[in-house]
Amino acid sequence: MVQQFMALSQWSNSMKTESAAQPGAPIGVFDSGVGGLTVVREIMRQIPNERIVYFGDTARVPYGNKSRETVTRYSRQIVHFLRTQNVKTIVIACNTASAYALEELEQEIDIPVIGVVKPGAKAAVEATRNGKIGVIATAGTIASKIYSQYIETIAPDASVIGKACPLFVPLVEEGLLQDPVTDEIARRYLTELKDRQIDSLILGCTHYPLIRDTIEKVMGDEVTLVNPAYETARELKELLAERSLLNEKPIGLGEDGHSFYVSDAAEKFQVFANSILKYGILSAKIVNAEKY
Amino acid sequence: MVQQFMALSQWSNSMKTESAAQPGAPIGVFDSGVGGLTVVREIMRQIPNERIVYFGDTARVPYGNKSRETVTRYSRQIVHFLRTQNVKTIVIACNTASAYALEELEQEIDIPVIGVVKPGAKAAVEATRNGKIGVIATAGTIASKIYSQYIETIAPDASVIGKACPLFVPLVEEGLLQDPVTDEIARRYLTELKDRQIDSLILGCTHYPLIRDTIEKVMGDEVTLVNPAYETARELKELLAERSLLNEKPIGLGEDGHSFYVSDAAEKFQVFANSILKYGILSAKIVNAEKY
Repeated sequence: MVQQFMALSQWSNSMKTESAAQPGAPIGVFDSGVGGLTVVREIMRQIPNERIVYFGDTARVPYGNKSRETVTRYSRQIVHFLRTQNVKTIVIACNTASAYALEELEQEIDIPVIGVVKPGAKAAVEATRNGKIGVIATAGTIASKIYSQYIETIAPDASVIGKACPLFVPLVEEGLLQDPVTDEIARRYLTELKDRQIDSLILGCTHYPLIRDTIEKVMGDEVTLVNPAYETARELKELLAERSLLNEKPIGLGEDGHSFYVSDAAEKFQVFANSILKYGILSAKIVNAEKY
Repeated sequence: MVQQFMALSQWSNSMKTESAAQPGAPIGVFDSGVGGLTVVREIMRQIPNERIVYFGDTARVPYGNKSRETVTRYSRQIVHFLRTQNVKTIVIACNTASAYALEELEQEIDIPVIGVVKPGAKAAVEATRNGKIGVIATAGTIASKIYSQYIETIAPDASVIGKACPLFVPLVEEGLLQDPVTDEIARRYLTELKDRQIDSLILGCTHYPLIRDTIEKVMGDEVTLVNPAYETARELKELLAERSLLNEKPIGLGEDGHSFYVSDAAEKFQVFANSILKYGILSAKIVNAEKY
Protein backbone atom coordinates (compact mmCIF):
# COMPACT_ATOMS: atom_id res chain seq x y z
CA MET A 1 0.00 0.00 0.00
CA VAL A 2 2.76 2.37 0.99
CA GLN A 3 4.74 1.32 -2.07
CA GLN A 4 1.72 1.86 -4.27
CA PHE A 5 1.29 5.34 -2.85
CA MET A 6 4.97 6.19 -3.38
CA ALA A 7 4.86 4.96 -6.93
CA LEU A 8 1.82 7.09 -7.62
CA SER A 9 3.48 10.09 -6.09
CA GLN A 10 6.63 9.57 -8.18
CA TRP A 11 4.50 9.22 -11.27
CA SER A 12 2.67 12.40 -10.49
CA ASN A 13 5.96 14.24 -9.88
CA SER A 14 7.42 13.08 -13.14
CA MET A 15 4.22 14.05 -14.92
CA LYS A 16 4.52 17.54 -13.48
CA THR A 17 8.09 17.93 -14.62
CA GLU A 18 7.31 16.59 -18.05
CA SER A 19 4.29 18.81 -18.49
CA ALA A 20 6.32 21.83 -17.25
CA ALA A 21 8.86 21.16 -19.97
CA GLN A 22 6.44 21.39 -22.89
CA PRO A 23 6.88 24.37 -25.26
CA GLY A 24 3.12 24.89 -25.05
CA ALA A 25 3.25 25.37 -21.26
CA PRO A 26 2.87 28.92 -19.94
CA ILE A 27 5.47 31.22 -18.40
CA GLY A 28 4.88 32.18 -14.77
CA VAL A 29 5.51 35.85 -13.95
CA PHE A 30 5.06 37.39 -10.52
CA ASP A 31 5.37 40.70 -8.80
CA SER A 32 4.36 42.33 -5.51
CA GLY A 33 1.48 44.01 -7.33
CA VAL A 34 0.77 45.66 -10.65
CA GLY A 35 4.27 46.94 -11.52
CA GLY A 36 5.35 43.60 -13.02
CA LEU A 37 2.91 44.19 -15.84
CA THR A 38 5.58 46.42 -17.42
CA VAL A 39 7.65 43.21 -17.69
CA VAL A 40 4.65 41.28 -19.06
CA ARG A 41 4.17 44.00 -21.69
CA GLU A 42 7.76 43.53 -22.82
CA ILE A 43 7.48 39.71 -22.93
CA MET A 44 4.28 39.99 -24.99
CA ARG A 45 6.05 42.33 -27.41
CA GLN A 46 9.20 40.22 -27.85
CA ILE A 47 7.76 36.67 -27.70
CA PRO A 48 4.07 37.07 -28.54
CA ASN A 49 3.41 33.32 -28.86
CA GLU A 50 4.00 32.71 -25.16
CA ARG A 51 1.14 32.25 -22.74
CA ILE A 52 1.61 34.02 -19.42
CA VAL A 53 0.30 33.20 -15.97
CA TYR A 54 0.71 36.36 -13.91
CA PHE A 55 0.46 36.64 -10.15
CA GLY A 56 0.34 40.05 -8.44
CA ASP A 57 0.51 39.94 -4.62
CA THR A 58 -1.86 42.88 -4.15
CA ALA A 59 -2.88 41.69 -0.66
CA ARG A 60 0.67 42.18 0.66
CA VAL A 61 2.02 44.90 -1.65
CA PRO A 62 4.51 46.62 -1.37
CA TYR A 63 7.60 44.43 -0.90
CA GLY A 64 10.12 47.27 -1.14
CA ASN A 65 10.17 48.13 2.56
CA LYS A 66 9.92 44.58 3.93
CA SER A 67 12.66 42.23 5.13
CA ARG A 68 14.55 39.55 3.20
CA GLU A 69 12.86 36.78 5.25
CA THR A 70 9.36 38.06 4.61
CA VAL A 71 9.89 38.77 0.90
CA THR A 72 11.44 35.30 0.45
CA ARG A 73 8.56 33.59 2.25
CA TYR A 74 6.01 35.44 0.10
CA SER A 75 7.93 34.65 -3.11
CA ARG A 76 8.14 30.96 -2.20
CA GLN A 77 4.38 30.77 -1.68
CA ILE A 78 3.79 32.36 -5.08
CA VAL A 79 6.24 30.01 -6.79
CA HIS A 80 4.33 27.09 -5.23
CA PHE A 81 1.10 28.49 -6.64
CA LEU A 82 2.62 29.03 -10.11
CA ARG A 83 3.87 25.41 -10.12
CA THR A 84 0.24 24.29 -9.81
CA GLN A 85 -0.29 26.03 -13.16
CA ASN A 86 2.41 23.85 -14.78
CA VAL A 87 4.56 26.75 -15.88
CA LYS A 88 7.71 25.93 -17.88
CA THR A 89 9.75 28.78 -16.38
CA ILE A 90 9.32 31.56 -13.82
CA VAL A 91 10.14 35.25 -14.17
CA ILE A 92 10.45 37.25 -10.95
CA ALA A 93 9.31 40.61 -12.26
CA CYS A 94 9.80 42.37 -8.94
CA ASN A 95 13.24 43.86 -8.26
CA THR A 96 12.98 43.44 -4.48
CA ALA A 97 11.99 39.76 -4.80
CA SER A 98 14.72 39.22 -7.42
CA ALA A 99 17.22 40.77 -5.03
CA TYR A 100 16.18 38.81 -1.94
CA ALA A 101 14.66 35.51 -3.10
CA LEU A 102 16.02 34.48 -6.52
CA GLU A 103 19.06 32.50 -5.36
CA GLU A 104 17.19 30.49 -2.74
CA LEU A 105 14.24 29.71 -5.00
CA GLU A 106 16.49 28.71 -7.91
CA GLN A 107 17.88 25.93 -5.71
CA GLU A 108 14.49 24.76 -4.58
CA ILE A 109 12.82 24.09 -7.92
CA ASP A 110 13.65 22.19 -11.09
CA ILE A 111 12.52 24.72 -13.72
CA PRO A 112 14.48 27.83 -14.67
CA VAL A 113 13.84 31.01 -12.68
CA ILE A 114 15.03 34.38 -13.91
CA GLY A 115 14.89 37.73 -12.20
CA VAL A 116 15.09 41.29 -13.49
CA VAL A 117 18.30 42.27 -11.70
CA LYS A 118 20.96 40.45 -13.75
CA PRO A 119 19.56 41.44 -17.16
CA GLY A 120 19.25 45.06 -15.97
CA ALA A 121 22.78 45.11 -14.60
CA LYS A 122 24.21 43.65 -17.84
CA ALA A 123 22.46 46.26 -19.96
CA ALA A 124 23.78 49.07 -17.76
CA VAL A 125 27.34 47.74 -18.06
CA GLU A 126 26.95 47.66 -21.86
CA ALA A 127 25.56 51.21 -21.89
CA THR A 128 28.11 52.98 -19.68
CA ARG A 129 31.08 54.79 -21.20
CA ASN A 130 32.62 56.32 -18.06
CA GLY A 131 31.98 53.32 -15.77
CA LYS A 132 29.68 55.25 -13.42
CA ILE A 133 26.35 53.50 -13.08
CA GLY A 134 23.38 54.69 -11.02
CA VAL A 135 20.63 52.47 -9.61
CA ILE A 136 17.31 53.76 -8.33
CA ALA A 137 15.03 51.27 -6.56
CA THR A 138 13.07 50.54 -3.39
CA ALA A 139 14.74 50.71 0.02
CA GLY A 140 14.88 46.88 0.07
CA THR A 141 16.61 46.51 -3.30
CA ILE A 142 19.16 49.22 -2.48
CA ALA A 143 19.84 47.76 0.99
CA SER A 144 20.44 44.32 -0.56
CA LYS A 145 23.29 45.81 -2.67
CA ILE A 146 22.38 43.19 -5.26
CA TYR A 147 22.94 45.44 -8.29
CA SER A 148 26.37 46.62 -7.18
CA GLN A 149 27.47 43.10 -6.21
CA TYR A 150 26.47 41.67 -9.56
CA ILE A 151 27.95 44.55 -11.55
CA GLU A 152 31.22 44.09 -9.65
CA THR A 153 31.44 40.49 -10.89
CA ILE A 154 30.94 41.42 -14.57
CA ALA A 155 32.67 44.82 -14.61
CA PRO A 156 35.08 45.13 -11.68
CA ASP A 157 36.14 48.65 -12.69
CA ALA A 158 32.67 50.11 -12.74
CA SER A 159 31.40 52.09 -9.77
CA VAL A 160 27.77 51.84 -8.75
CA ILE A 161 25.80 54.51 -6.89
CA GLY A 162 22.47 53.37 -5.45
CA LYS A 163 19.61 55.57 -4.29
CA ALA A 164 16.34 54.45 -2.68
CA CYS A 165 13.29 56.36 -3.96
CA PRO A 166 10.42 55.24 -1.67
CA LEU A 167 7.93 57.90 -2.82
CA PHE A 168 8.05 57.00 -6.52
CA VAL A 169 5.73 53.97 -6.17
CA PRO A 170 2.95 55.82 -4.28
CA LEU A 171 3.25 58.79 -6.68
CA VAL A 172 2.84 56.45 -9.68
CA GLU A 173 -0.04 54.65 -8.01
CA GLU A 174 -1.71 58.01 -7.31
CA GLY A 175 -1.42 58.73 -11.05
CA LEU A 176 0.93 61.73 -10.71
CA LEU A 177 2.97 60.61 -13.74
CA GLN A 178 3.52 64.13 -15.02
CA ASP A 179 3.23 66.51 -12.14
CA PRO A 180 5.24 69.26 -10.43
CA VAL A 181 5.26 67.26 -7.17
CA THR A 182 6.78 64.23 -8.90
CA ASP A 183 9.28 66.58 -10.60
CA GLU A 184 10.29 68.00 -7.22
CA ILE A 185 10.65 64.58 -5.55
CA ALA A 186 12.64 63.32 -8.56
CA ARG A 187 14.98 66.32 -8.30
CA ARG A 188 15.62 65.56 -4.62
CA TYR A 189 16.28 61.88 -5.21
CA LEU A 190 18.33 62.23 -8.39
CA THR A 191 20.48 65.35 -7.91
CA GLU A 192 23.13 63.38 -6.03
CA LEU A 193 23.38 60.84 -8.90
CA LYS A 194 23.63 63.63 -11.46
CA ASP A 195 26.31 65.42 -9.43
CA ARG A 196 28.31 62.21 -9.28
CA GLN A 197 28.24 62.11 -13.09
CA ILE A 198 26.73 58.71 -13.71
CA ASP A 199 26.11 58.10 -17.42
CA SER A 200 23.72 55.16 -17.17
CA LEU A 201 20.85 54.73 -14.73
CA ILE A 202 19.03 51.48 -13.95
CA LEU A 203 15.30 51.91 -13.33
CA GLY A 204 15.42 49.25 -10.61
CA CYS A 205 11.71 49.06 -9.78
CA THR A 206 8.98 48.03 -12.19
CA HIS A 207 6.95 51.18 -11.50
CA TYR A 208 9.70 53.54 -12.57
CA PRO A 209 9.40 53.14 -16.36
CA LEU A 210 5.99 54.78 -15.96
CA ILE A 211 7.69 58.05 -14.88
CA ARG A 212 10.54 57.70 -17.36
CA ASP A 213 9.87 61.19 -18.81
CA THR A 214 10.18 62.83 -15.40
CA ILE A 215 13.42 60.98 -14.63
CA GLU A 216 14.81 61.86 -18.08
CA LYS A 217 13.99 65.54 -17.55
CA VAL A 218 16.07 65.62 -14.34
CA MET A 219 18.96 63.45 -15.58
CA GLY A 220 19.35 65.02 -19.02
CA ASP A 221 20.01 63.46 -22.44
CA GLU A 222 23.56 62.30 -21.64
CA VAL A 223 22.38 59.64 -19.20
CA THR A 224 21.10 56.36 -20.66
CA LEU A 225 18.05 55.06 -18.77
CA VAL A 226 18.07 51.25 -18.53
CA ASN A 227 14.73 49.46 -18.21
CA PRO A 228 15.45 45.90 -16.98
CA ALA A 229 12.08 44.72 -18.37
CA TYR A 230 13.41 44.90 -21.95
CA GLU A 231 16.56 42.90 -21.17
CA THR A 232 14.67 40.39 -19.06
CA ALA A 233 12.32 39.58 -21.94
CA ARG A 234 15.34 39.22 -24.26
CA GLU A 235 17.07 36.81 -21.83
CA LEU A 236 13.87 34.86 -21.40
CA LYS A 237 13.61 34.45 -25.16
CA GLU A 238 17.22 33.22 -25.38
CA LEU A 239 16.71 30.80 -22.51
CA LEU A 240 13.59 29.30 -24.08
CA ALA A 241 15.31 29.02 -27.47
CA GLU A 242 18.35 27.22 -25.97
CA ARG A 243 16.09 24.66 -24.32
CA SER A 244 13.79 24.28 -27.36
CA LEU A 245 10.93 25.59 -25.27
CA LEU A 246 9.75 28.46 -27.47
CA ASN A 247 6.10 28.15 -28.36
CA GLU A 248 5.74 28.17 -32.14
CA LYS A 249 1.96 28.24 -32.31
CA PRO A 250 0.19 31.62 -31.99
CA ILE A 251 -1.96 31.72 -28.87
CA GLY A 252 -5.60 32.70 -28.72
CA LEU A 253 -7.42 34.75 -26.14
CA GLY A 254 -9.89 33.40 -23.59
CA GLU A 255 -9.12 30.00 -22.09
CA ASP A 256 -6.11 29.54 -24.37
CA GLY A 257 -4.60 32.95 -23.62
CA HIS A 258 -3.01 34.61 -20.64
CA SER A 259 -4.20 34.26 -17.04
CA PHE A 260 -4.02 36.88 -14.33
CA TYR A 261 -4.19 36.15 -10.62
CA VAL A 262 -4.01 38.54 -7.69
CA SER A 263 -4.25 38.08 -3.93
CA ASP A 264 -6.67 41.00 -3.49
CA ALA A 265 -8.87 43.56 -5.28
CA ALA A 266 -9.13 41.94 -8.70
CA GLU A 267 -11.26 44.72 -10.20
CA LYS A 268 -8.82 47.49 -9.34
CA PHE A 269 -6.04 45.37 -10.82
CA GLN A 270 -7.95 44.92 -14.07
CA VAL A 271 -8.34 48.68 -14.51
CA PHE A 272 -4.61 49.24 -14.02
CA ALA A 273 -3.67 46.25 -16.19
CA ASN A 274 -5.82 47.50 -19.02
CA SER A 275 -4.07 50.86 -18.89
CA ILE A 276 -0.65 49.18 -19.21
CA LEU A 277 -1.24 46.25 -21.57
CA LYS A 278 -2.20 46.74 -25.18
CA TYR A 279 -5.38 44.71 -25.14
CA GLY A 280 -7.94 44.19 -22.41
CA ILE A 281 -7.26 41.34 -20.03
CA LEU A 282 -10.32 39.17 -19.75
CA SER A 283 -10.45 38.88 -15.99
CA ALA A 284 -8.28 38.53 -12.92
CA LYS A 285 -8.98 35.85 -10.33
CA ILE A 286 -8.27 36.02 -6.61
CA VAL A 287 -5.95 33.47 -5.02
CA ASN A 288 -4.96 33.42 -1.33
CA ALA A 289 -1.16 33.12 -1.54
CA GLU A 290 -0.86 32.38 2.19
CA LYS A 291 -2.19 28.89 1.50
CA TYR A 292 0.68 27.85 -0.79
CA MET B 1 -11.95 9.44 26.45
CA VAL B 2 -13.86 11.82 24.22
CA GLN B 3 -15.74 13.17 27.23
CA GLN B 4 -12.53 13.60 29.14
CA PHE B 5 -11.09 15.57 26.25
CA MET B 6 -14.16 17.79 26.01
CA ALA B 7 -14.10 18.49 29.71
CA LEU B 8 -10.47 19.46 29.50
CA SER B 9 -11.15 21.73 26.57
CA GLN B 10 -14.06 23.42 28.41
CA TRP B 11 -11.89 23.89 31.45
CA SER B 12 -9.15 25.44 29.35
CA ASN B 13 -11.70 27.75 27.66
CA SER B 14 -13.12 28.92 30.96
CA MET B 15 -9.60 29.52 32.26
CA LYS B 16 -8.92 31.73 29.28
CA THR B 17 -12.05 33.79 29.79
CA GLU B 18 -11.42 34.20 33.47
CA SER B 19 -7.84 35.24 32.99
CA ALA B 20 -8.89 37.69 30.27
CA ALA B 21 -11.26 39.34 32.70
CA GLN B 22 -8.63 40.21 35.33
CA PRO B 23 -7.89 43.94 35.85
CA GLY B 24 -4.20 43.07 35.72
CA ALA B 25 -4.49 41.60 32.22
CA PRO B 26 -3.12 43.69 29.37
CA ILE B 27 -4.97 45.60 26.64
CA GLY B 28 -4.44 44.36 23.08
CA VAL B 29 -3.93 47.11 20.51
CA PHE B 30 -3.34 46.49 16.82
CA ASP B 31 -2.71 48.40 13.63
CA SER B 32 -1.55 47.72 10.09
CA GLY B 33 1.88 49.05 11.05
CA VAL B 34 3.36 51.83 13.15
CA GLY B 35 0.55 54.40 12.96
CA GLY B 36 -1.39 52.81 15.82
CA LEU B 37 1.35 53.93 18.17
CA THR B 38 -0.33 57.37 18.18
CA VAL B 39 -3.27 55.59 19.85
CA VAL B 40 -0.94 53.77 22.24
CA ARG B 41 0.62 57.11 23.19
CA GLU B 42 -2.81 58.46 24.09
CA ILE B 43 -3.75 55.34 26.12
CA MET B 44 -0.47 55.58 28.03
CA ARG B 45 -1.20 59.24 28.76
CA GLN B 46 -4.79 58.75 29.94
CA ILE B 47 -4.58 55.38 31.72
CA PRO B 48 -0.91 54.95 32.57
CA ASN B 49 -1.45 51.87 34.78
CA GLU B 50 -2.53 49.70 31.86
CA ARG B 51 -0.19 47.21 30.26
CA ILE B 52 -0.36 47.13 26.47
CA VAL B 53 0.32 44.32 24.02
CA TYR B 54 0.74 45.98 20.63
CA PHE B 55 0.73 44.22 17.27
CA GLY B 56 1.77 46.08 14.09
CA ASP B 57 1.24 44.13 10.85
CA THR B 58 4.36 45.49 9.20
CA ALA B 59 4.63 42.45 6.87
CA ARG B 60 1.34 43.33 5.17
CA VAL B 61 1.14 47.10 5.67
CA PRO B 62 -0.69 49.14 4.34
CA TYR B 63 -4.34 48.14 4.78
CA GLY B 64 -5.80 51.36 3.33
CA ASN B 65 -5.90 50.21 -0.29
CA LYS B 66 -6.90 46.59 0.34
CA SER B 67 -10.36 44.99 0.24
CA ARG B 68 -12.83 44.41 3.08
CA GLU B 69 -12.31 40.62 2.85
CA THR B 70 -8.53 40.83 3.07
CA VAL B 71 -8.48 43.42 5.88
CA THR B 72 -11.01 41.37 7.86
CA ARG B 73 -8.99 38.16 7.41
CA TYR B 74 -5.80 39.90 8.56
CA SER B 75 -7.57 41.49 11.54
CA ARG B 76 -9.05 38.15 12.58
CA GLN B 77 -5.59 36.53 12.58
CA ILE B 78 -4.23 39.32 14.75
CA VAL B 79 -7.14 39.05 17.19
CA HIS B 80 -6.41 35.33 17.48
CA PHE B 81 -2.79 36.12 18.26
CA LEU B 82 -3.74 38.77 20.85
CA ARG B 83 -6.05 36.27 22.57
CA THR B 84 -3.04 34.06 23.18
CA GLN B 85 -1.66 36.96 25.24
CA ASN B 86 -4.75 36.87 27.50
CA VAL B 87 -5.77 40.46 26.81
CA LYS B 88 -8.84 41.80 28.64
CA THR B 89 -9.99 43.99 25.76
CA ILE B 90 -8.90 44.81 22.20
CA VAL B 91 -8.48 48.21 20.58
CA ILE B 92 -8.42 48.32 16.78
CA ALA B 93 -6.15 51.32 16.34
CA CYS B 94 -6.36 51.21 12.54
CA ASN B 95 -9.18 53.17 10.93
CA THR B 96 -9.41 50.86 7.89
CA ALA B 97 -9.63 47.75 10.09
CA SER B 98 -12.14 49.49 12.38
CA ALA B 99 -14.22 50.35 9.31
CA TYR B 100 -14.13 46.90 7.73
CA ALA B 101 -13.65 44.35 10.50
CA LEU B 102 -14.95 45.65 13.85
CA GLU B 103 -18.57 44.45 13.57
CA GLU B 104 -17.68 40.93 12.50
CA LEU B 105 -14.95 40.50 15.09
CA GLU B 106 -17.15 41.86 17.90
CA GLN B 107 -19.54 38.98 17.28
CA GLU B 108 -16.80 36.38 17.17
CA ILE B 109 -15.15 36.98 20.55
CA ASP B 110 -16.23 37.30 24.15
CA ILE B 111 -14.12 40.25 25.25
CA PRO B 112 -14.89 43.88 24.35
CA VAL B 113 -13.46 45.24 21.10
CA ILE B 114 -13.38 48.94 20.36
CA GLY B 115 -12.36 50.74 17.20
CA VAL B 116 -11.27 54.32 16.53
CA VAL B 117 -14.16 55.25 14.22
CA LYS B 118 -17.07 55.67 16.64
CA PRO B 119 -15.11 57.71 19.21
CA GLY B 120 -13.77 59.94 16.42
CA ALA B 121 -17.22 60.43 14.91
CA LYS B 122 -18.74 61.34 18.29
CA ALA B 123 -16.06 63.92 18.97
CA ALA B 124 -16.61 65.52 15.57
CA VAL B 125 -20.36 65.76 16.17
CA GLU B 126 -19.68 67.47 19.51
CA ALA B 127 -17.24 69.87 17.89
CA THR B 128 -19.25 71.01 14.87
CA ARG B 129 -21.32 74.19 15.02
CA ASN B 130 -22.57 74.36 11.42
CA GLY B 131 -23.15 70.59 10.98
CA LYS B 132 -20.57 70.23 8.21
CA ILE B 133 -18.00 67.57 9.09
CA GLY B 134 -15.02 66.56 6.99
CA VAL B 135 -13.27 63.18 7.11
CA ILE B 136 -9.82 62.50 5.68
CA ALA B 137 -8.65 58.89 5.58
CA THR B 138 -7.31 56.08 3.40
CA ALA B 139 -9.15 55.07 0.23
CA GLY B 140 -10.53 52.00 2.07
CA THR B 141 -11.96 53.93 5.01
CA ILE B 142 -13.56 56.54 2.72
CA ALA B 143 -14.99 53.86 0.39
CA SER B 144 -16.50 52.04 3.38
CA LYS B 145 -18.53 55.21 4.21
CA ILE B 146 -18.27 54.09 7.83
CA TYR B 147 -17.82 57.59 9.27
CA SER B 148 -20.77 59.10 7.41
CA GLN B 149 -23.03 56.14 8.24
CA TYR B 150 -22.25 56.35 11.93
CA ILE B 151 -22.54 60.13 12.09
CA GLU B 152 -25.94 59.87 10.40
CA THR B 153 -27.20 57.66 13.22
CA ILE B 154 -26.11 60.06 15.98
CA ALA B 155 -26.63 63.40 14.17
CA PRO B 156 -29.06 62.95 11.26
CA ASP B 157 -28.86 66.65 10.28
CA ALA B 158 -25.08 66.70 9.91
CA SER B 159 -23.51 66.44 6.48
CA VAL B 160 -20.27 64.55 6.04
CA ILE B 161 -17.72 65.14 3.29
CA GLY B 162 -15.09 62.43 2.91
CA LYS B 163 -11.77 62.69 1.09
CA ALA B 164 -9.19 59.94 0.54
CA CYS B 165 -5.58 61.13 0.98
CA PRO B 166 -3.44 58.17 -0.19
CA LEU B 167 -0.13 60.06 -0.28
CA PHE B 168 -0.22 61.24 3.33
CA VAL B 169 0.96 57.87 4.74
CA PRO B 170 4.01 57.50 2.44
CA LEU B 171 4.90 61.19 3.00
CA VAL B 172 4.81 60.66 6.79
CA GLU B 173 6.79 57.43 6.52
CA GLU B 174 9.38 59.26 4.39
CA GLY B 175 9.67 61.78 7.23
CA LEU B 176 8.41 64.79 5.25
CA LEU B 177 6.39 66.07 8.22
CA GLN B 178 7.14 69.72 7.54
CA ASP B 179 7.92 70.10 3.90
CA PRO B 180 6.75 72.11 0.88
CA VAL B 181 5.82 68.87 -0.95
CA THR B 182 3.55 67.80 1.91
CA ASP B 183 2.10 71.35 1.98
CA GLU B 184 1.32 71.13 -1.74
CA ILE B 185 -0.29 67.67 -1.50
CA ALA B 186 -2.30 68.81 1.55
CA ARG B 187 -3.56 71.85 -0.38
CA ARG B 188 -4.74 69.60 -3.23
CA TYR B 189 -6.51 67.14 -0.96
CA LEU B 190 -8.03 69.67 1.43
CA THR B 191 -9.08 72.63 -0.73
CA GLU B 192 -12.39 70.99 -1.61
CA LEU B 193 -13.20 70.45 2.09
CA LYS B 194 -12.31 74.05 2.89
CA ASP B 195 -14.45 75.35 0.01
CA ARG B 196 -17.38 73.35 1.28
CA GLN B 197 -17.01 75.15 4.63
CA ILE B 198 -16.64 72.23 7.01
CA ASP B 199 -15.93 73.38 10.56
CA SER B 200 -14.62 70.11 12.01
CA LEU B 201 -12.29 67.62 10.39
CA ILE B 202 -11.69 64.04 11.50
CA LEU B 203 -8.08 62.84 11.11
CA GLY B 204 -9.29 59.40 10.06
CA CYS B 205 -5.94 57.64 9.78
CA THR B 206 -3.47 57.12 12.61
CA HIS B 207 -0.60 58.66 10.61
CA TYR B 208 -2.34 61.99 10.11
CA PRO B 209 -1.85 63.46 13.63
CA LEU B 210 1.86 63.46 12.76
CA ILE B 211 1.21 66.13 10.07
CA ARG B 212 -1.38 68.01 12.12
CA ASP B 213 0.51 71.31 11.69
CA THR B 214 0.45 71.03 7.90
CA ILE B 215 -3.27 70.21 7.87
CA GLU B 216 -3.98 73.08 10.28
CA LYS B 217 -2.07 75.52 8.06
CA VAL B 218 -4.28 74.65 5.07
CA MET B 219 -7.60 74.45 6.93
CA GLY B 220 -7.15 77.55 9.11
CA ASP B 221 -7.98 78.23 12.77
CA GLU B 222 -11.76 78.03 12.35
CA VAL B 223 -11.72 74.30 11.67
CA THR B 224 -11.46 71.96 14.67
CA LEU B 225 -9.19 68.99 13.97
CA VAL B 226 -10.45 65.82 15.65
CA ASN B 227 -7.90 63.14 16.58
CA PRO B 228 -9.83 59.88 17.21
CA ALA B 229 -6.93 58.55 19.31
CA TYR B 230 -7.78 60.93 22.15
CA GLU B 231 -11.47 59.95 22.21
CA THR B 232 -10.66 56.26 21.82
CA ALA B 233 -8.46 56.29 24.91
CA ARG B 234 -11.24 58.13 26.80
CA GLU B 235 -13.84 55.51 25.77
CA LEU B 236 -11.50 52.71 26.66
CA LYS B 237 -11.04 54.17 30.13
CA GLU B 238 -14.82 54.45 30.61
CA LEU B 239 -15.37 50.90 29.41
CA LEU B 240 -12.76 49.48 31.77
CA ALA B 241 -14.18 51.51 34.71
CA GLU B 242 -17.74 50.26 34.01
CA ARG B 243 -16.56 46.67 34.09
CA SER B 244 -14.26 47.15 37.09
CA LEU B 245 -11.32 46.23 34.89
CA LEU B 246 -9.10 49.27 35.45
CA ASN B 247 -5.68 48.30 36.69
CA GLU B 248 -5.00 50.12 39.96
CA LYS B 249 -1.40 49.04 40.40
CA PRO B 250 1.32 51.02 38.60
CA ILE B 251 3.13 48.89 36.05
CA GLY B 252 6.83 48.44 35.72
CA LEU B 253 8.98 48.22 32.64
CA GLY B 254 10.66 45.07 31.36
CA GLU B 255 8.73 41.83 31.70
CA ASP B 256 5.93 43.53 33.63
CA GLY B 257 5.52 46.37 31.15
CA HIS B 258 4.29 46.74 27.62
CA SER B 259 4.98 44.26 24.81
CA PHE B 260 5.41 45.09 21.14
CA TYR B 261 5.00 42.59 18.31
CA VAL B 262 5.34 43.09 14.58
CA SER B 263 5.08 40.75 11.61
CA ASP B 264 8.25 42.11 9.96
CA ALA B 265 11.30 44.36 10.42
CA ALA B 266 11.33 44.68 14.21
CA GLU B 267 14.36 46.98 14.29
CA LYS B 268 12.87 49.57 11.95
CA PHE B 269 9.71 49.48 14.05
CA GLN B 270 11.67 50.14 17.24
CA VAL B 271 13.26 53.25 15.77
CA PHE B 272 9.88 54.66 14.73
CA ALA B 273 8.25 53.64 18.03
CA ASN B 274 10.94 55.37 20.02
CA SER B 275 10.34 58.58 18.06
CA ILE B 276 6.61 58.48 18.88
CA LEU B 277 6.44 57.12 22.44
CA LYS B 278 7.84 59.01 25.39
CA TYR B 279 10.19 56.37 26.64
CA GLY B 280 12.18 53.76 24.75
CA ILE B 281 10.43 50.47 24.09
CA LEU B 282 12.60 47.61 25.20
CA SER B 283 12.26 45.46 22.11
CA ALA B 284 9.82 44.34 19.46
CA LYS B 285 9.37 40.66 18.64
CA ILE B 286 8.44 39.16 15.30
CA VAL B 287 5.29 37.03 14.99
CA ASN B 288 4.01 35.47 11.76
CA ALA B 289 0.35 36.55 11.76
CA GLU B 290 -0.51 34.18 8.90
CA LYS B 291 -0.31 31.30 11.36
CA TYR B 292 -3.15 32.51 13.59
